[in-house]
Amino acid sequence: SWIIILQTVTLIPGDGIGPEISTAVMKIFEAAKAPIQWEERNVTAIKGPGGKWMIPTEAKDSMDKSKIGLKGPLKTPIAAGHPSMNLLLRKTFDLYANVRPCVSIEGYKTPYTDVDLVTIRENTEGEYSGIEHVIVDGVVQSIKLITEEASQRIAEYAFEYARNNQRASVTAVHKANIMRMSDGLFLRKCREVAENFKDIKFTEMYLDTVCLNMVQDPTQFDVLVMPNLYGDILSDLCAGLIGGLGVTPSGNIGANGVAIFESVHGTAPDIAGKDLANPTALLLSAVMMLRHMGLHGQAKKIETACFDTIRDKKVLTKDLGGNSKCSEFTGEICRRVQDME
Amino acid sequence: SWIIILQTVTLIPGDGIGPEISTAVMKIFEAAKAPIQWEERNVTAIKGPGGKWMIPTEAKDSMDKSKIGLKGPLKTPIAAGHPSMNLLLRKTFDLYANVRPCVSIEGYKTPYTDVDLVTIRENTEGEYSGIEHVIVDGVVQSIKLITEEASQRIAEYAFEYARNNQRASVTAVHKANIMRMSDGLFLRKCREVAENFKDIKFTEMYLDTVCLNMVQDPTQFDVLVMPNLYGDILSDLCAGLIGGLGVTPSGNIGANGVAIFESVHGTAPDIAGKDLANPTALLLSAVMMLRHMGLHGQAKKIETACFDTIRDKKVLTKDLGGNSKCSEFTGEICRRVQDME
Ligand SMILES: CC(C)[C@H](C(=O)O)[C@@H](O)C(=O)O
Ligand SMILES: CC(C)[C@H](C(=O)O)[C@@H](O)C(=O)O
Repeated sequence: SWIIILQTVTLIPGDGIGPEISTAVMKIFEAAKAPIQWEERNVTAIKGPGGKWMIPTEAKDSMDKSKIGLKGPLKTPIAAGHPSMNLLLRKTFDLYANVRPCVSIEGYKTPYTDVDLVTIRENTEGEYSGIEHVIVDGVVQSIKLITEEASQRIAEYAFEYARNNQRASVTAVHKANIMRMSDGLFLRKCREVAENFKDIKFTEMYLDTVCLNMVQDPTQFDVLVMPNLYGDILSDLCAGLIGGLGVTPSGNIGANGVAIFESVHGTAPDIAGKDLANPTALLLSAVMMLRHMGLHGQAKKIETACFDTIRDKKVLTKDLGGNSKCSEFTGEICRRVQDME
Repeated sequence: SWIIILQTVTLIPGDGIGPEISTAVMKIFEAAKAPIQWEERNVTAIKGPGGKWMIPTEAKDSMDKSKIGLKGPLKTPIAAGHPSMNLLLRKTFDLYANVRPCVSIEGYKTPYTDVDLVTIRENTEGEYSGIEHVIVDGVVQSIKLITEEASQRIAEYAFEYARNNQRASVTAVHKANIMRMSDGLFLRKCREVAENFKDIKFTEMYLDTVCLNMVQDPTQFDVLVMPNLYGDILSDLCAGLIGGLGVTPSGNIGANGVAIFESVHGTAPDIAGKDLANPTALLLSAVMMLRHMGLHGQAKKIETACFDTIRDKKVLTKDLGGNSKCSEFTGEICRRVQDME
């Protein structure tokens, strides 16, 4: 007889289609016998002492214990001054690296094939500092903040990611020709860290050149590392190359193993509750999570079942070009997972 | 008998392949009997009084008189502190709008067809303010400056452009969800100006969403207007969709008719002087220039001859997939222009 140690994961189902696609993921995890225990929490921000927005204690405590979260789409409440929930979560848990693998999916047609790259975005500073001023009437400044510490940390993360994932090269994306000091600092740190990773090829490229080259031939890229806003842009651009946010996983990584994996698409209120949603992005994010937890066997199984289902084209949700329900698509993946036992 | 009034244009041939492609354009203009008189000038910056970099007086005077420039690629000198020549020219003549039409070229295969959009980039402020500070050791800030005046001016330019060019819609591209005050101001100005152009549809979209949608279906876009850095990125991305910088024209527009049209590709030193360069980007920029000057007949003729030559695939430079020389490609366009007489 076996003792199976279950690891706890904080599940944040989210809004709109969030609960449906979360249920789908849980079903598939059950079929794969993934040793995960879900702790469901609501993170919608509340006003804490001093009027500061914060996520509820129950959710914070759960994450502090489990260290790992899986999160569906969240709508940003319309209350005045309410922060974006995504930003608040990144901040609360100091999730400094946003990681998005973009891999072409066989059978899901886009203008590109053989895309296989990863964007690694600095997630805590840069243009997202939130510091803005009116200088005089009609003149506004926003401050982009780049620190040595955060630049070094993200550069190290990118190179370690490359090494651990058998990736050959890291490209630093910047505009140091324009923002000589801030992007200059970021770039310098990347160069320094590159010195310690002689096994990984290091290149640097202007953001505009990356965008141009990316749409002409994305297969030339491997791991890309960049400041916050550039990552926001490039990660979405790259998602577009392989079929959009409905099929692109994402992970937000912090120190000491803390991480939240999330689908980055919206809440799709128009189809919520109708069993029409596509759970692929959340499922592939959950697969990233399994790998992060060292559960490579189950990760591979689920990923294979998902990609096989898409390649087969028989049971697909509407956005993927089929006419099956979310539950049918989920059932098909479960069946394939179980067949692999 | 006729009196033909020649208009003077300041020609800045530029470096590397610049002189060859400039010669190509002049030949084609001659074949089309475009009533242009070229005044060739060198703009490479010199140190003026007080150590400030400035373009030589001869070039400045020529532009001040002619108001219109055509410019090949310039290399940025490596002298310490030397500014980018592109930025210096934009600044010297207050060329506040960078306009890049991106139109799919028949016969030149890319993953996209039917692209037909225009990016309009604010060219004077934003992330290009050049204001940066070290706050404390290891902490740097760059300032993004957005003003009401420049935002209004570029918004008005975009809507007027749309109206004058039979375009149906203008999309303002922003990240006002993150930079609420600066991008917020830019967006507010766009909204206000839109009120005065009820014949043009106005939409707004986050920059990341634009990138995602752009690579999935660029045909949904028409005129796009945006702050400086977003324009740098999006204009290159869009150029990539239709075949790259070798075929994409660009115009930098200032007040009172002042404008410099330019190819935005590099100087290609490896093939310079070998009669191998592709003059298309500079030629199409010169076509934009003709339209700007009201010379629509010659513009149409030259544009048609150029596109026909590419569609025909018989006489193409190497980068366009052929094996003809620059002079042969130029000759073919001249022949077609003359056949239209
Ligand atoms: C929702 C928004 C604040 C966020 C961002 O701009 O970072 C989103 O675009 C993302 O990429 O997660
Ligand atoms: C050369 C460089 C300074 C310039 C920019 O960043 O604006 C270029 O990329 C452009 O788009 O003209």
